Amino acid sequence: MPTLKDVAKLAGVSFKTVSRVINRSPHLKDEMRQKVLRAIDALEYRPHHNARHLRTGRSNVLAFINDDIAMTPFAGRIIQGAQEASWRNGMLLLTLHTGGDRSFERAAVHAAIDRQVEGIVFATMYHRAVEVREAAFEIPLVLVDCFASNGPHTSVVPDETGGGYAATKCLLERGHRRIAMINADLKYPAAVGRLNGYREALKDFGVEFDSRLIRTGGWWQEDGYEHAISLLEVKPTAIFCVSDRVAMGVYDALKERGLRIPEDVSVVGFDDQELIAPHLRPALTTVRVPYFEMGSWAVEHLAEAGRAVDQSKRQIVRLDCLLVSRCSVSKPFQGFAMLGEPARASRKKHRA
Amino acid sequence: MPTLKDVAKLAGVSFKTVSRVINRSPHLKDEMRQKVLRAIDALEYRPHHNARHLRTGRSNVLAFINDDIAMTPFAGRIIQGAQEASWRNGMLLLTLHTGGDRSFERAAVHAAIDRQVEGIVFATMYHRAVEVREAAFEIPLVLVDCFASNGPHTSVVPDETGGGYAATKCLLERGHRRIAMINADLKYPAAVGRLNGYREALKDFGVEFDSRLIRTGGWWQEDGYEHAISLLEVKPTAIFCVSDRVAMGVYDALKERGLRIPEDVSVVGFDDQELIAPHLRPALTTVRVPYFEMGSWAVEHLAEAGRAVDQSKRQIVRLDCLLVSRCSVSKPFQGFAMLGEPARASRKKHRA
Repeated sequence: MPTLKDVAKLAGVSFKTVSRVINRSPHLKDEMRQKVLRAIDALEYRPHHNARHLRTGRSNVLAFINDDIAMTPFAGRIIQGAQEASWRNGMLLLTLHTGGDRSFERAAVHAAIDRQVEGIVFATMYHRAVEVREAAFEIPLVLVDCFASNGPHTSVVPDETGGGYAATKCLLERGHRRIAMINADLKYPAAVGRLNGYREALKDFGVEFDSRLIRTGGWWQEDGYEHAISLLEVKPTAIFCVSDRVAMGVYDALKERGLRIPEDVSVVGFDDQELIAPHLRPALTTVRVPYFEMGSWAVEHLAEAGRAVDQSKRQIVRLDCLLVSRCSVSKPFQGFAMLGEPARASRKKHRA
Repeated sequence: MPTLKDVAKLAGVSFKTVSRVINRSPHLKDEMRQKVLRAIDALEYRPHHNARHLRTGRSNVLAFINDDIAMTPFAGRIIQGAQEASWRNGMLLLTLHTGGDRSFERAAVHAAIDRQVEGIVFATMYHRAVEVREAAFEIPLVLVDCFASNGPHTSVVPDETGGGYAATKCLLERGHRRIAMINADLKYPAAVGRLNGYREALKDFGVEFDSRLIRTGGWWQEDGYEHAISLLEVKPTAIFCVSDRVAMGVYDALKERGLRIPEDVSVVGFDDQELIAPHLRPALTTVRVPYFEMGSWAVEHLAEAGRAVDQSKRQIVRLDCLLVSRCSVSKPFQGFAMLGEPARASRKKHRA
């Protein structure tokens, strides 16, 4: 087994420097830290877990508990952000998946406490309210993409309103005035926030809100398809979709009706879903939800504050949802072609 | 704090029965086990982690180490399968994500060993060879969606060849003979296996392999789009795609050329990607990769065998990739319409 001295020798630094790297001392140049980490890796040196824990009084472990990883394509980005921040801070991230089951959630919280974690990150598969288990009150906690319905806890969530505003603004700036929104059910904070952003942007541009341009339903392609068909009657020049999946359905509906994107109708999505948004034809202009950044923020917050996190101060941090411009937005000039069917044939007539 | 006696009282069973549930005795009716688990949950009873560990000599913990969760939409299903099997076996699953970094992988393996896990599940984001770290040789290990290039280890992987066979057979049975395949690079075992399955099925149906019908490239929509365009020249009546993403690009290409799916060209995908396959128009017939089942198999194998897993016996278990029939396959009758352009207008001429 290699020793601390072997590491120091290979890295060409002092015994003390190696020790400081292992114990995550903040007063160390990054270059020095990298040199030591490379030597640790080369020698497969392993500081004894329990011994270190006893010496520093820190377990160097965080728990990441989430409700359902498989049903959402986004959870991976949150975990990735949390994971990278953990490695960066020399901490180990233990991930526990509960599948949304309350008794497994209980087991996960207790497992984390048993392992003397320094903090817990609790993440949900979509932005919502959660009830934090009392057992978790003992430990510094950050909620990701959710907020506590009981007690004060620190949360990091997407700025949904800002995202809805950014999507609508990009259409307004191109000259669109008849902007439809295909939203999800208003029981979801994401749907409420994005709608508020849409309304605020309209207001700032002096455009009156028209409820006939609003559709409400689910998050899926089929919802987008059906709502787009029904929207053709009210002739929007642009459609803002609550998700990229909805936008994918909207694409199908518009194309089947012979309408071109963006020449006839502009489309904006939400999520910047890696599997879909950049690969649609045309590539989808959308709003990026900061999943990676939320995971990263949660871990950095716990790592910095450590035991000093003041749980009595409830803090909800909203991270920006930024517009990702691709090819599905243009000027509204030809949008009024949606009067007839097939639209392509009658475009010229209606443009006049 | 509730005691074991409180649990026994509430569940209406003996002290010994509760103890057997907690220590995962196999000789217990499921009904009894459920009764005790409900009482444990109701009381929030928590057997002391370390005490139990000392008594039984078992940590009841498994580690799940995977290389990159964020870049793949499939990893979630593997984790979900492993997670559900772990809870079912009364074990805790600690998930560690390495992001594919070798030094983080080392840290993860050591973290697992330090925590005295009873076994390690190591999963990759796509089917490939991996080098298992020597440190992990100490512990029962199952590889998921990958296999070891060094030493004997038990793996569970998809039966790629069987999947390719199933996809091609479903087209052959409908009467297709000019079946194109858009494959990924042959450096991937998945691509090699799926191509082998395609060739075997052709052989079994007495259809000669024609290399002009094969395209090789990436896994993405753009690859599917480009290859589909180039395939139009050789007039396939059906296209078997190496992934659902490729199929999505094929849909775009065919639709833009005025071809109907499946009337003009049948399409089969691979993966059964939840975000895409059921939501395309028409819904995509595809092959399901048993991600969930692989995760589940790995944990069941470790839970059953425990320390008795014989590491000297290398075992590669292949789980079935089953066809999921939706709406993108029909008889090839009208497929020859792909002669002209626009095909829709000239369909009748070519059908003769």
